[in-house]
Amino acid sequence: MRKGRVTIPTDENYVDGTKVIADLWGADAVRDCDGTHLPKNASELADKVYNTYFVVRGDNAWADLHTDELQSVLLMTEYNLARGNELKIELLKGYSRDQLGINEENPKKYWQVFDRTTGEEVFDWEYSDGFVTVKNTLPYHEYTVNFFAKNLWDSTQMYNYITNNWNIEKHKVMDTRFKATFEHIKDNMRKWCEDNKNVNVVRYTTFLYHFFLVFNEINKEKHVDWFGYPMTAGPRAFDDFAREYGYELKSEDIVACGSYQSNFVNPTKRFKDYMEFSEKYVTKTVRELVDIVHAEGKEAMMFLGDSWIGTEPYGDYFKDMNLDAVVGSVGGGVTVRMLSEIPHVKYHEGRFLPYFFPDTFFEGNEANAIAELNRNWVTARRAMMRKPLDRMGFGGYLALAAKFPEFIKRAGEVCDEFRRICDASNGAKPYAGLTVAILNSWGKKRSWMCHMVAHELWYQQVYSYQGVYEALSGLGVDVKFISFDDILANGIDKDIDVIINAGDEGTAFSGAEYWADERVVTIIRKWVDEGHGFIGVGEPTAINKGGKFFQLSDILGVDREKGFTLSEDKYNIDKKAHFITEDVASAIDYGEGMKNVYALKGADVLDIEISPRFTRSVNVGEVKLCANSFGGGRGVYIAGLPYSSQNARLLLRAMFWACGKENELKKAFSTNVEVDCTYYPESKKYAIVNNTQTEQRTVFYDVNGRAQELTVKGGEIVWIE
Amino acid sequence: MRKGRVTIPTDENYVDGTKVIADLWGADAVRDCDGTHLPKNASELADKVYNTYFVVRGDNAWADLHTDELQSVLLMTEYNLARGNELKIELLKGYSRDQLGINEENPKKYWQVFDRTTGEEVFDWEYSDGFVTVKNTLPYHEYTVNFFAKNLWDSTQMYNYITNNWNIEKHKVMDTRFKATFEHIKDNMRKWCEDNKNVNVVRYTTFLYHFFLVFNEINKEKHVDWFGYPMTAGPRAFDDFAREYGYELKSEDIVACGSYQSNFVNPTKRFKDYMEFSEKYVTKTVRELVDIVHAEGKEAMMFLGDSWIGTEPYGDYFKDMNLDAVVGSVGGGVTVRMLSEIPHVKYHEGRFLPYFFPDTFFEGNEANAIAELNRNWVTARRAMMRKPLDRMGFGGYLALAAKFPEFIKRAGEVCDEFRRICDASNGAKPYAGLTVAILNSWGKKRSWMCHMVAHELWYQQVYSYQGVYEALSGLGVDVKFISFDDILANGIDKDIDVIINAGDEGTAFSGAEYWADERVVTIIRKWVDEGHGFIGVGEPTAINKGGKFFQLSDILGVDREKGFTLSEDKYNIDKKAHFITEDVASAIDYGEGMKNVYALKGADVLDIEISPRFTRSVNVGEVKLCANSFGGGRGVYIAGLPYSSQNARLLLRAMFWACGKENELKKAFSTNVEVDCTYYPESKKYAIVNNTQTEQRTVFYDVNGRAQELTVKGGEIVWIE
Repeated sequence: MRKGRVTIPTDENYVDGTKVIADLWGADAVRDCDGTHLPKNASELADKVYNTYFVVRGDNAWADLHTDELQSVLLMTEYNLARGNELKIELLKGYSRDQLGINEENPKKYWQVFDRTTGEEVFDWEYSDGFVTVKNTLPYHEYTVNFFAKNLWDSTQMYNYITNNWNIEKHKVMDTRFKATFEHIKDNMRKWCEDNKNVNVVRYTTFLYHFFLVFNEINKEKHVDWFGYPMTAGPRAFDDFAREYGYELKSEDIVACGSYQSNFVNPTKRFKDYMEFSEKYVTKTVRELVDIVHAEGKEAMMFLGDSWIGTEPYGDYFKDMNLDAVVGSVGGGVTVRMLSEIPHVKYHEGRFLPYFFPDTFFEGNEANAIAELNRNWVTARRAMMRKPLDRMGFGGYLALAAKFPEFIKRAGEVCDEFRRICDASNGAKPYAGLTVAILNSWGKKRSWMCHMVAHELWYQQVYSYQGVYEALSGLGVDVKFISFDDILANGIDKDIDVIINAGDEGTAFSGAEYWADERVVTIIRKWVDEGHGFIGVGEPTAINKGGKFFQLSDILGVDREKGFTLSEDKYNIDKKAHFITEDVASAIDYGEGMKNVYALKGADVLDIEISPRFTRSVNVGEVKLCANSFGGGRGVYIAGLPYSSQNARLLLRAMFWACGKENELKKAFSTNVEVDCTYYPESKKYAIVNNTQTEQRTVFYDVNGRAQELTVKGGEIVWIE
Repeated sequence: MRKGRVTIPTDENYVDGTKVIADLWGADAVRDCDGTHLPKNASELADKVYNTYFVVRGDNAWADLHTDELQSVLLMTEYNLARGNELKIELLKGYSRDQLGINEENPKKYWQVFDRTTGEEVFDWEYSDGFVTVKNTLPYHEYTVNFFAKNLWDSTQMYNYITNNWNIEKHKVMDTRFKATFEHIKDNMRKWCEDNKNVNVVRYTTFLYHFFLVFNEINKEKHVDWFGYPMTAGPRAFDDFAREYGYELKSEDIVACGSYQSNFVNPTKRFKDYMEFSEKYVTKTVRELVDIVHAEGKEAMMFLGDSWIGTEPYGDYFKDMNLDAVVGSVGGGVTVRMLSEIPHVKYHEGRFLPYFFPDTFFEGNEANAIAELNRNWVTARRAMMRKPLDRMGFGGYLALAAKFPEFIKRAGEVCDEFRRICDASNGAKPYAGLTVAILNSWGKKRSWMCHMVAHELWYQQVYSYQGVYEALSGLGVDVKFISFDDILANGIDKDIDVIINAGDEGTAFSGAEYWADERVVTIIRKWVDEGHGFIGVGEPTAINKGGKFFQLSDILGVDREKGFTLSEDKYNIDKKAHFITEDVASAIDYGEGMKNVYALKGADVLDIEISPRFTRSVNVGEVKLCANSFGGGRGVYIAGLPYSSQNARLLLRAMFWACGKENELKKAFSTNVEVDCTYYPESKKYAIVNNTQTEQRTVFYDVNGRAQELTVKGGEIVWIE
C-alpha cells in the first residue's frame, strides 16, 4: 500500500480514528466538513490541511451596517396581462421574500419594462413600494419588468437550511464592487490566515457570485441554472461595464425574455461581452485574495460549485487567479473530465461518493454503501483512464464510515487503484485512435459542460445528448470542444478527424442561427468532402432555410420532416447491416429519439422505427441511425444517444467509420463492449478495464492489432505491460 | 322500399341484371365505369344517365399537331452541389421522362436559379439541351433550378396505367390558355353532346388542371399534393397573371423552396393572388363548357378529384361555373362533410365502398365485402346525420356484385337507410349544442380539407390532427372554418362559442407567423376573456416570441419547452379528475402526441405521461391534456387526437366545458360513447345511431334533458319521434 493523492474528512472529536484510516487509505490530506471543526492538531494528521472559506457570505454584522452594499440579482417578473390601460405589477410576486428584496436604486436607469406581446420596451411607468405601474397599456398585451433584487440570503445556505431544517443565522451576500466592502473582505481574509496557521489549503466555496438559484414564494426552488449570470449583475456592475466597454448594457441583454441567456441559448455579442467583463472582474478580484493566501504560504483551492460564476475554468481569464487547485464532486465520466482538464492549476481533486452521512451510513446498510462506492468509482474510472484527476477525496463524517469495516477495506483498494492509474498515465496522454471535436456555440469555454442545467441533474430533454459526452469521456479518442466562431475565424484544426454536432433545434448546442450562415455550412461541407467525418445527434445543423431543416442533410443523409415536404415520397426505408452496428446485441436505446426523420436517396438506413399504426409501404417510419457518404468524407446521423456500454461502442464505431479509419478501430481495443482498453505509450502499459461488477471475457487487441483472449473479473483492471 | 337518390354502375353487357338491382336498391341513376360502356338504351334503365368526360386529356391527335400547346408543370430540380466555379444541372434528373419533357420557351424569362445555401437568386446561367449551366458558382453551395416542364402524360391515367399494367395510348394534356386548343375543346364538347343524347349527366373527371402528381425516373410516385397548383402554371398563365395583377409572378412564388406552397405552408400574398387568378380562369373557362352542356339539356357534375385544381369548391368563384352537382369518393366523415357542404350546386353525391372490382368480389369473399360496406357506411353515416349527401352511388362492375346475394340485400338496406336519413333532415339543420370554429391560415376556403396531403391517405404526421375533424364531422355541434385574415378583418363571428387551433409549429394549420401578430393574439385573448373557449391541439399558437413558444399559453395553461427555460422549475404535475374526462374508460390515445409540454401554475393537468426513466419529483412528465381558466373563458390543451369514439366524446366535452356550457351537454345526448344522438327539430325526430356492429346500451337524453334507457342493435339507427 502506498500513500498520497487522497483527502479524508476529519473532526475534532475523531482524531485517533482519522489516523487509523489515513494510514489504511494512504491519505495525505484532511478537510473539514459542514457541521464539523478541524482538530487543533490537524497538521499532525496529514501533510495537507484543507479548510472551507466563504468570501462574500456570512458576515452579517458587516452586511447589516452596509445594507446598500449587498449583492443584487437581475430578475424578470411574471407575465402580467393588461385588461385596461393601466397595469400594476408586483415585482416580487412568485419570488421568495426571505431570499430577495428590491434594490430600489434608480429604477429608471437600470430597469426595463417590456410589452412581451409586441416585444417592445415601454417607458411610461413608475415604481413605488414594490410595484411598477405601467401607463397606457394596450388591452390584452402582457407586460414584464426586469429589475434588480437584493440578495438577502446565500442560495446554497438557503437550500441547505431548508432541506435540513436548520435554524441558524441566514447568510447575507456582500458585493465586492463596493470599495469599503472589498477592503473589509480582504481584511477578513488576512485575519483568517492569521487565525488558521494549521491550515495549508484554503478551500474556497467559492468566490464572488453564486450560480443563478432563486426560490419561490414558498421557498421552493424556482429557477436553477448552474451557468447563469443574473447573480453577477447589479447597478455597480452595469456602471463599470459602460465605462469599460463604451456602451450601456441593458437588463434585457441578460434577462433575454426570461431565458436569462442560459447555457442552451446562443450567446449574443453583448452577452459574451458581459461574460468577459465579469470574468475579468472576478479573476482580478479573487487574485487579490489568492495573493494574501500565498503570502501566508498556503495554497488556494477552488470548489467548482456554488459561487463559481465568472471564473469560467476554460475561459481566457481563469489563469489570472493563480490558483493552486480545483476540487469538485464526481458524478460520472463527464464531471471527471470537466475537472481533470481544467488548465492553469497544479492539481485537480475529485470528491467521490458516497458521502459519509447518516442517510447512507446507518446500521445494516454497509452493502449498499459499498455498492454506491463501486458504482461511482467504476463510472468515473472510465474517464480517469483517459485523463485522471490528481487527487481524490471523500466528504462527511469519518466516524460513520469507520463503523463499516468492509467499506473501509474496499475504499482503501479504490485509493490504491486510483494511485496506480495516476502512475500509469504519469501525466502523459494515452493512445488515441482519432480526434473528435464537439461543435457548438460555446466551444472550449464550456468544455465538458454541454447540455447541463443544474449541475449533474437528469432532465428528460438532455439525457439523450449527455450520453454522447459521457461516452466520449471514456473512449480511446482525443476530445476537443470548438465553437462556430472558432471555425469562422480559423477554420477547422488540422488534427480533427470527426466533428459532432448534437442538440435540439434552436439551442446553443445545435447552433441555431449559426446554421443559417453560409460560411459555417460551406466550411464544413468542404472539410467533410476532403475526407473527414461529421456526426449529428438529435437535431444537428437545424434551422429552416432553403427548403431544408437540417442544413447539412446532404452530409447526414437525413432530414427532418416539418410538414412542408410531406408531399414528397420517401422510399429509403430498408434497414442495412453496417460496420457501425456490428457490436449491437440488443435494441439500440435512442433515449427520447427524434420524430419525423427520414433518409435521403443514397443514404444507408441503419435503424428505423416503424409504428404499428402504419399500413402504407413507403413514406413510413422514423430513421434513428443513418450512414452516408459525401464526396471523400462521411456523415452519420443518430437520433439520440443516452449513455450505455453499447451506445458508447456505437459512437466509437461511428467516429472511426465517419473519418474512414475503420481499419484502425482494433488498436488498443476490446471486443466486449463492457470492457475498455487504454494504452499508455510512455509507460508501455495497457489497462483492460471491466466496467461491470461481473466477470467478462473479451478479445484484447494491442496497438499493432495483435489479439489475445482475456478474462477480467468484475470491476477489475488487468494491466498488461 | 322506396326509390331515388342512388346511382349504380352499368355495362352494355349487363342490362337485365342492372334492371333487377336498380329495382332492389331503388336506384334512379346509372353510370359508366373504367373499361365499360353504357348500354345504348341506358336511359330506359334509370331517370339519370351519367357519363364520364375528360376535358383536356386524351385528344392525342390534336396534341401531336399542337405540341406547343401542351400543359406545363412548374418544377424544381434536385439540389446540386457546386465544388468548383461552374455547375451543370440536369433539369429532369429524378423525374419521369415518360411524363415530363422540358418547355424550352424563354427560360431566361420564366425560370429561376437559386443558390439555396444563401437563398439568393443567381443570374449567371445558360440553358442548353436539358441542362442549365451555372457560372461563377460558390464552392460548396447548393443550387437548384425552377423550370417549366411539359405535361406529356395525364397523371391519373399514368397512375392507372402503371398500376394495372395497361398498354393503351398515353393521354397528353392540353392547355386551354391557347386559343386554338380551347376552341377545339369546346368543339369536342359540342360534338360529344351530339353523340351522347342518351346521357343526361356529364360527369366531368374533372376540368383543366390536375392536382400536383409527378413521377420519378422509374415511374414511381415522386410528389403528390392533392391541393398543389404547380400543374396550373405555365408561360401563358404567368403572362396572363402579369397583365391581370399588374406585377410579374416568379416561379419561386409557387415553388417556395420545393414545398410548392402545399396545404401545410402558410399562403403568401402572392400565392393567394395566384390562386385567385387560377380560380377566376378555371371557373370562367369551365363555365363555357357547362353552358354548352346546359344548352343540350344535360346536367354538369364535377368529380372532386383528378383535375379539380382551381375550382376550390369553398372559394369565391366556384359558383361561377354554374354546376349542377358534385360527386366524390367517401372515406370517412370528413370526406362526407367536405362533399355535402359544398355550396352552389343542386346536389351532392358520394361514391361508397367497396368498389365492385375483382380484388374484393371474388368467390368466397362475400363476408368481407359486406364488412367493408358496413364499415364504410357506418363511418360515413356519423357525418351524414349532421349534413347528409343528397345521393349515394357505387362504382365498378355490377355483374360482380350480383354474384353475392347477401351483399345485394345489405346494400339495399343501406340505400333505404340513406333515404330515411335524407328525409329526416329534409334539408334542415339538426340541433347543435354550440358552434365551433377551426382557426387556421386557410379558413373557409379549405373547409374539411385540413391536414390532407394526398386525398384521404394516412400519414404519420397528420392522423393525430385529422381525428379532430373526423370527430367534429359527426358531433352535435355546428362547425365553421375561419382564417386569421378573417378575424383580422372582421373579428370573431358572434355565433362562435369555441375556437380550435390544431397543427404543428410553422404550418398553415397551426398558423406560423400569424401568431407573431399581436392583433391575432389580443383579439383572441379578449374574446376568450369575455366568456368563450379556446382549444389547442399539438402545437397551437406556436412561434418562438417573447419568451413563450405557445403564444396563448396563458389561455391553454401549457407551454412547450424548447430548451430555453429548462432552468425554470415546473411543479404542476398532478393529474386531476375533470368534466372533460368523465367518459374516459381506457387510456386516452394521443396519437403521435407532443413532447415536452408542461403545465403552467394554476392550470388543471388532466393527463400527464411520466417516463419510467424519471427519478426526480418535479420537472417531470409531459402534459397530454390540460384545462385552464382565463378570465371569463377557458382554454383546453390536447396533445393529439386520432379519431376514436372515446376521443370524439373527449373533444365534445372539451368544447362544452371550454365555452362554459357544461350544463347543456346532455341535450340530444347518448351516454354511451359508441352511440350518437342527432335531433332534427323540423321533423321532431331523434336518431340514435349505433356506430359499432355490436349491440349497445345507452341512456338517451332529449333536448329537454329527459333521460331514457335504450338498447340499439349493431349498426342500427333507432328513430324516436
